[in-house]
Amino acid sequence: MYAGSSEMEQVVCVDTMVEGVHFRKDTLSSFQIGKKALAINISDIAAMGAIPTYYLVSVAVPPTWTEEELSEIYEGMNELAKRYEIDLIGGDTVSSNDALVITVTAIGKVEQGKAIFRSDARADDIVFLTGYVGGSAAGLDVLFEKGFNGLFSDKEKQLVKAHQEPTPHVEAGRILAKSNARISLNDVSDGVASEANELAEASQARLIIEQERIPLHPAMSEYSVERQLKFAMFGGEDFVLIGTVPKEKKEEISTQFRKSGLPFHEIGFMEAGEPSVFIKEGNERKKIQKHGYNHFQKRG
Amino acid sequence: MYAGSSEMEQVVCVDTMVEGVHFRKDTLSSFQIGKKALAINISDIAAMGAIPTYYLVSVAVPPTWTEEELSEIYEGMNELAKRYEIDLIGGDTVSSNDALVITVTAIGKVEQGKAIFRSDARADDIVFLTGYVGGSAAGLDVLFEKGFNGLFSDKEKQLVKAHQEPTPHVEAGRILAKSNARISLNDVSDGVASEANELAEASQARLIIEQERIPLHPAMSEYSVERQLKFAMFGGEDFVLIGTVPKEKKEEISTQFRKSGLPFHEIGFMEAGEPSVFIKEGNERKKIQKHGYNHFQKRG
Repeated sequence: MYAGSSEMEQVVCVDTMVEGVHFRKDTLSSFQIGKKALAINISDIAAMGAIPTYYLVSVAVPPTWTEEELSEIYEGMNELAKRYEIDLIGGDTVSSNDALVITVTAIGKVEQGKAIFRSDARADDIVFLTGYVGGSAAGLDVLFEKGFNGLFSDKEKQLVKAHQEPTPHVEAGRILAKSNARISLNDVSDGVASEANELAEASQARLIIEQERIPLHPAMSEYSVERQLKFAMFGGEDFVLIGTVPKEKKEEISTQFRKSGLPFHEIGFMEAGEPSVFIKEGNERKKIQKHGYNHFQKRG
Repeated sequence: MYAGSSEMEQVVCVDTMVEGVHFRKDTLSSFQIGKKALAINISDIAAMGAIPTYYLVSVAVPPTWTEEELSEIYEGMNELAKRYEIDLIGGDTVSSNDALVITVTAIGKVEQGKAIFRSDARADDIVFLTGYVGGSAAGLDVLFEKGFNGLFSDKEKQLVKAHQEPTPHVEAGRILAKSNARISLNDVSDGVASEANELAEASQARLIIEQERIPLHPAMSEYSVERQLKFAMFGGEDFVLIGTVPKEKKEEISTQFRKSGLPFHEIGFMEAGEPSVFIKEGNERKKIQKHGYNHFQKRG
């Protein structure tokens, strides 16, 4: 239970992670499962420009999981919750027969009229990312290749960490919400291609990404550029924010990011036209479909 | 997203139903799964004396379920949502490999300081139920016996309906919240024994149930009294409310219920003493442990 406030609007997000689909015991520790389940939801809150405030957890636990592993899941969530000063206010623990299923509900608040949506991009806006992309998918590739306890190089360690312990971009979302600019925003849970297409569709405009400006995670340097781009565009789970801002507001907002020590990468621009996403390399444009990261099988 | 209010407190509840644990395709239709998943959560809101306002749904769907069945789940929720005028404000649909897992988050509101808890029962309070108990567990028994499409007698139909389409007691919760009396309250999701023990523990007092006053679902009359009592005490999923109210407030509150056309069954009283529950038959008392309805296996 929590007190309402007439100055703030409430936002609520829910996300489910399923064993064998979104994670396996050989890709995430119990602690990391908890931490990531909460991070995914906090990222949704961040993508609206809101401040996370509370969360609830519902877990369906099969007999193959021990009480200790279950505690570690809660500890993982608690570590992240402490960082954002958010409280666990409810939940449910039930049995399942096969897979562990964890659903987190996150609640946030944002000043009246300041919530950010996907639908406010307009022609001539610039498109930005608030951090490196591709690292999480590359980390999963490393985990599949070398196993949970593999001997990782320093770069591989960075990628594995990007996959296992992503950081939601709450502060970036707050800078944008307080900017008084017309912003559209989405978090990169399903790959840049998918999220960019969502922005384009919601805003009914064309989104152009300049290939050489995509901030590819530097620890991916051992991979070919082609694979790096694939991880970035179709990988997902980077949990940076992708958004748009009017050209004339770019300087002001990127300065705010710099002052806060946060990255702000301009990666492209909006155009009038049918809702679609193109990747531009020199003078060539390729249309990019939505099919982002499919985890281990079809449905998100 | 929804507007906050400084006069109301927000309450949030989350519950998960797992295929093969809380339901099977031969105990509930897709429509009923949706309706029941939402009913369970609205019942949690009712048990705090709150008004349901919004809900979110997260479903993990295995390949064995069709898109049409998934739509029916949402239709089932929508039917109940319309009745309570609550809006679906978010959700997530993901894949699972084996079982369908549905998690509903329900949001409610209650006037400042009016939320009801389990911990306010005191010695000499009377204990009440807001409806018949045992019907849902008896209905499940009928379903196990005769199958989903069995030829049911009229009484069996009532029991099956009690199991498949339980009604949350929101109006009863609201009468209690507005009564200005010191109330403790819980909803009967896990059987009277389990919920009564929760009240006794939270309130640190002894709860006595007079056996002959338990409002056994009348459609159970073909069962022995012993089985009827077992269904009522250890069955669960009746989603009536069990609570306590000070003796001197009983008349006023039961009159309120009568005026609203709602049942109010006095079933016992509170005593000072170690937190525990006893069932009283004549001059004999039997201690009743918590182990309520275990669904198809151990964890709630």
